[in-house]
Amino acid sequence: MSDLGRATLASSASEADAEPLRDARRLSFNQATAERASLRDVIDACARHDVPYISIWRHKLAELGLERAATLVRDAGLAVSSVCRGGMFPASTAAERAVRIDDNRRAIDEAATLGAEVLVLVCGAAPDRDISSAREMVADGIAAIAPYAKERGVRLGIEPLHPAFAAERSCITTMREARLIAERFDSVNVGVVVDVYHVWWDPERAEEIARLGDRIAGFHVNDWLVPVKNVLMNRGMMGDGVIELRRMRGEIERAGYRGPIEVEIFNESLWEEPLDEIVALTMKRFVDYV
Amino acid sequence: MSDLGRATLASSASEADAEPLRDARRLSFNQATAERASLRDVIDACARHDVPYISIWRHKLAELGLERAATLVRDAGLAVSSVCRGGMFPASTAAERAVRIDDNRRAIDEAATLGAEVLVLVCGAAPDRDISSAREMVADGIAAIAPYAKERGVRLGIEPLHPAFAAERSCITTMREARLIAERFDSVNVGVVVDVYHVWWDPERAEEIARLGDRIAGFHVNDWLVPVKNVLMNRGMMGDGVIELRRMRGEIERAGYRGPIEVEIFNESLWEEPLDEIVALTMKRFVDYV
Repeated sequence: MSDLGRATLASSASEADAEPLRDARRLSFNQATAERASLRDVIDACARHDVPYISIWRHKLAELGLERAATLVRDAGLAVSSVCRGGMFPASTAAERAVRIDDNRRAIDEAATLGAEVLVLVCGAAPDRDISSAREMVADGIAAIAPYAKERGVRLGIEPLHPAFAAERSCITTMREARLIAERFDSVNVGVVVDVYHVWWDPERAEEIARLGDRIAGFHVNDWLVPVKNVLMNRGMMGDGVIELRRMRGEIERAGYRGPIEVEIFNESLWEEPLDEIVALTMKRFVDYV
Repeated sequence: MSDLGRATLASSASEADAEPLRDARRLSFNQATAERASLRDVIDACARHDVPYISIWRHKLAELGLERAATLVRDAGLAVSSVCRGGMFPASTAAERAVRIDDNRRAIDEAATLGAEVLVLVCGAAPDRDISSAREMVADGIAAIAPYAKERGVRLGIEPLHPAFAAERSCITTMREARLIAERFDSVNVGVVVDVYHVWWDPERAEEIARLGDRIAGFHVNDWLVPVKNVLMNRGMMGDGVIELRRMRGEIERAGYRGPIEVEIFNESLWEEPLDEIVALTMKRFVDYV
């Protein structure tokens, strides 16, 4: 391709970017972004900064108590975009898999009590060297909890994780694979959560996002820092890494998604900052880069 | 799925495993497995242990000198399965991309002088946030060097890298994507190198290996250690990690590949061992686990 051809390619690509966001009205603050703060403090900070949505992790919920958390969230005027996380279905024995199913039912109850739109599923890794069997256990696990989720009015969101986590957290690594499982269910019952960190590299990204359509159950943003050291803690604030955030938001919006956009950043240095600064920086970068 | 169903699935899966190798006659010792040793010492060690093939990195070749290396390899009775590496095509300016093409031509010359079967291509990452344009630069770069590779009798092997390297080493991350580029050329001219570390997690792994067929230009083995810390140095000796090595060799062999199998392990702890122990361990694990 000539340089002229390349220039044309680049400009047509930039036309595919979403228009800048004018405000933070779709922002959901995922609590993992301020992991060292208590849930109570994060709820207060979101209210103080007029952040409209929050995403809550279950270990933080356990510290505060479910009913107390639900009251505080309601009183603060916050909506809960998601609860993190259900899943972790594969295990080496049927008994242990049954324990995981029970835990997922409790997660569904918690999400229902909080009025959360989605329970995010991090599906779990193979207990041995057999990743294909683990994938079947994931599909079986989702089938086992889907009716109860429907009954409680909680949507399940399968989150494909970056392949770097395939051995430890999720044998489900691509949007295509997540979609093929989700399509066994009603789209209001089971969808797919798209986190830019996990899928930005996928050569079929744009096509898969388009195919997801109303299956998109959430959109998570952050950034992929360079150079990579610890792959779990390699997430950065939007704008600090290499992900084409506006192009991905364009893909997501053309697919029809207009819901909350969660900022979820696992980053030790960020966690050392004061909570108010984390929230203020999140809002600024959200408007500037997403 | 019932537990009975699961047991059936597991046993049918194990039937898909390759038969154990009886010896190391297909072993190629990739020099990166003993990164701290000189090329001369690695050639001597391979000859001493009756390792039939070697894979040589260009920075080691530069230290020893090309002609000298070719003589030593020939005198030792070793065959060269591959030279690592060409590629690194994307760059922000046309002038810099032209420099990369020239360097790839030199790599082809080196591979030809050594009688190497394959020049491995690590394709390079995007110079900016535009991974789609980088992919076009890769396809353009391969098109620019393929005729010269054919003229010199060197096969180009596109190696898709694990998505954890997408921002720093290769925008080409899946076998499917590598195959789609390779299919623009004759299969004797451009193939795909399958390294278990990079592709073991891929849900379309078995189907893609089957589709590759005579495009398979190399098979690299090692293992994926758990837990992951530094993703570049996370490779282990075969048997120390979670990769289904025999199942993957079964997939590769059913696709028709019967060539050398390279052991390529980037691992700081392994590199600290004496060279003879590294080679002996490599041979043992090759027969026991691959």
